[in-house]
Amino acid sequence: MDLLSIDNLSDDQIEHVLDRSVTLYQQRGRTIGGLEGRIVFNLFFENSTRTLMSFATAAHRLGASAITLPVEQSAVRKGETLEDTARTLDAMRPDAVVIRHQENGAPAAVALVIDAPVINAGDGINEHPTQALLDAATIRYRLGRIDGLKIAICGDIKHSRVARSNEKLLSRLGAEVRLAGPPELMPDGVPQLSVDEAVRSADVVMMLRVQRERLSEDLGDAPGEFLRRHGLTAERLALANPDAVVMHPGPINRGVEIDNSVADDPERSLINIQVAMGVAARMACLELLLT
Amino acid sequence: MDLLSIDNLSDDQIEHVLDRSVTLYQQRGRTIGGLEGRIVFNLFFENSTRTLMSFATAAHRLGASAITLPVEQSAVRKGETLEDTARTLDAMRPDAVVIRHQENGAPAAVALVIDAPVINAGDGINEHPTQALLDAATIRYRLGRIDGLKIAICGDIKHSRVARSNEKLLSRLGAEVRLAGPPELMPDGVPQLSVDEAVRSADVVMMLRVQRERLSEDLGDAPGEFLRRHGLTAERLALANPDAVVMHPGPINRGVEIDNSVADDPERSLINIQVAMGVAARMACLELLLT
Amino acid sequence: MDLLSIDNLSDDQIEHVLDRSVTLYQQRGRTIGGLEGRIVFNLFFENSTRTLMSFATAAHRLGASAITLPVEQSAVRKGETLEDTARTLDAMRPDAVVIRHQENGAPAAVALVIDAPVINAGDGINEHPTQALLDAATIRYRLGRIDGLKIAICGDIKHSRVARSNEKLLSRLGAEVRLAGPPELMPDGVPQLSVDEAVRSADVVMMLRVQRERLSEDLGDAPGEFLRRHGLTAERLALANPDAVVMHPGPINRGVEIDNSVADDPERSLINIQVAMGVAARMACLELLLT
Repeated sequence: MDLLSIDNLSDDQIEHVLDRSVTLYQQRGRTIGGLEGRIVFNLFFENSTRTLMSFATAAHRLGASAITLPVEQSAVRKGETLEDTARTLDAMRPDAVVIRHQENGAPAAVALVIDAPVINAGDGINEHPTQALLDAATIRYRLGRIDGLKIAICGDIKHSRVARSNEKLLSRLGAEVRLAGPPELMPDGVPQLSVDEAVRSADVVMMLRVQRERLSEDLGDAPGEFLRRHGLTAERLALANPDAVVMHPGPINRGVEIDNSVADDPERSLINIQVAMGVAARMACLELLLT
Repeated sequence: MDLLSIDNLSDDQIEHVLDRSVTLYQQRGRTIGGLEGRIVFNLFFENSTRTLMSFATAAHRLGASAITLPVEQSAVRKGETLEDTARTLDAMRPDAVVIRHQENGAPAAVALVIDAPVINAGDGINEHPTQALLDAATIRYRLGRIDGLKIAICGDIKHSRVARSNEKLLSRLGAEVRLAGPPELMPDGVPQLSVDEAVRSADVVMMLRVQRERLSEDLGDAPGEFLRRHGLTAERLALANPDAVVMHPGPINRGVEIDNSVADDPERSLINIQVAMGVAARMACLELLLT
Repeated sequence: MDLLSIDNLSDDQIEHVLDRSVTLYQQRGRTIGGLEGRIVFNLFFENSTRTLMSFATAAHRLGASAITLPVEQSAVRKGETLEDTARTLDAMRPDAVVIRHQENGAPAAVALVIDAPVINAGDGINEHPTQALLDAATIRYRLGRIDGLKIAICGDIKHSRVARSNEKLLSRLGAEVRLAGPPELMPDGVPQLSVDEAVRSADVVMMLRVQRERLSEDLGDAPGEFLRRHGLTAERLALANPDAVVMHPGPINRGVEIDNSVADDPERSLINIQVAMGVAARMACLELLLT
């Protein structure tokens, strides 16, 4: 079984992963074992701190070993195709392969030639299923449920695999998901909501990272301009449910899509819980796929 | 004891490594332990995917830890001599040191100052002994013997440490080894055989990687030209023994030294078996040197 | 508890770490366990071979896992602040964080947001406490004591975190520490001693690495000139106590701050012992902070 998309998981599997994630989170990062002697290959063709470290930590907490392919000095630099690289790595018989790649569908393509379970750690603007699972687990942990919640996902929806996987998962779990952002950053066919409209009476406000290089005059590239028009300020958050929580997949652009006072609010910001839940959710996924 | 060259191994040691490699291969990548608590340092001064991952996987499958020196950010970048780097790393008392280096003899030079067993993972155009061992184990696994086989090694013989180690090992094991390639890519003093002549009635055809940057007008740098003149096509393979198998140390240049139909032939191509056998052979070598 | 500076350690803790380092050193690099299941994050924002490998080896010798952040491809490259990176990594609940950074005080800054013990592996020109501990352990191992010794630390004192931590530690342990170097490379407020004056009748001569890029006409940038004027030659070493030992934190610049005959003197040079003691001292520090 592979985890390429939220669509690969049955409702039962999702329930199991969310429950297990919260349990592991509550154990505060203890090493629990269970996958001793297993080897996880990490293939990160795109920059990453948190996701790479999170998967490596998750593997070690389960007693497994994580081996990271040094992509910069690998054979893909000698012109080897991704499929040939994948076939080669699979022949070494890892117990799981985690892959992040800048192209949509790359993990699915390699999964076709890899026997071991493949986990998509983010592909292009397509999906990032473990991020959605950790986000859902964080919401459930904090708010007790997902069904019936109003969840605003705001920012660069068009280019966000986080938004895409979260929209799939949270909708399946019964949330009302509202996607909002500057019109230039919204995909076609999605109802146009302003951030204000999405945030109004929301229970959860999930801000997305804006690539600074995407900021243009239209989007507001003067300092603070994007924040004022589309970012999460304390004023804008006041439109939400009074108990609303704030999320962000990180790394955050302080003062761009989120204001410091909101990002650092100890009561309402779940950003650090998301990171901790990330290790737990990846442990839960590795357990699911490898046992 | 170091493994710098095939010449370091006695006949008994070679027999042992080949037998053990096949046994480990047949266990399909299980972690077997035996070297718990041991530490292997990987020093790769040249790009590598498969060899680096293969050694790291082998170490972990034996319960050992592999620590990879980040060469790009290491003291060799500050002008430290290789011998001083080696002396420093040895003082940390690793249980084994695996080294790949672009210069002939670099592993032998570091072995002089390193107490721990040193394994040559490829040095310049000199030797790559574990590649030869995995190749021999693959041949024996598939064809049942090596003695008496006709083995064609074709391509850039002049610059190939794989050819050099294989020629030594396979000859010692009783094979008739034929080296062939374009005249420009043959070392002095080797009988000039065309690829056609070498492949004729061969039991094994081992193709070598051609560096694309070595392709010139003389060698045929138009698309498909090298393949037609010196590469392994289905037509050329038809000259070999009808049961002949095809090998390649990888990464393959599709359409340059080998045609897709040959590389991907599920019956005759042993390329993926070679990779899997690579982990097994490196496990066998680590066991030999560390116990 | 963090280890950001020598000042963080009580006298008892220093005694304990030095004793334990020598004991572990004498066990010649055996894996002893004790921290099974623990995870150490290595964050090296500056180039390093020996310190990074030393900490990783120390972690593994204790049964723990070391995960190295690939700084080059990390979120700090996306403009994330160091504090946010630290907060994120801490949320993954490592058992310890080792950090090297080019800025003075960076480890102290991250320690404010990190719950896990933080070890400073060198920050700017501020401190490098584990280097001082391994140096002190090496001196005590070889000379039996530190109290009352005359210890010359020579070279680029102004920019040396090694000098700074050693001066603090060795003075506390009762040594007479003499700092010497070219006037241009001495900090303000330190008595100006020539290298000759510092070395005279010293029991220990510790040479510091000179950055080749700092060599100017004034400092002597002709080949051998710095060595003649400020480096450790056999002639200059003859000024010291006849039993004096020679130390260097590495990597050494052969022929710049130290002559080959001195660096490689098997009786007097402790350079390789320092490296081996480095693993032992880091094991002792990890034990202290994590148990």
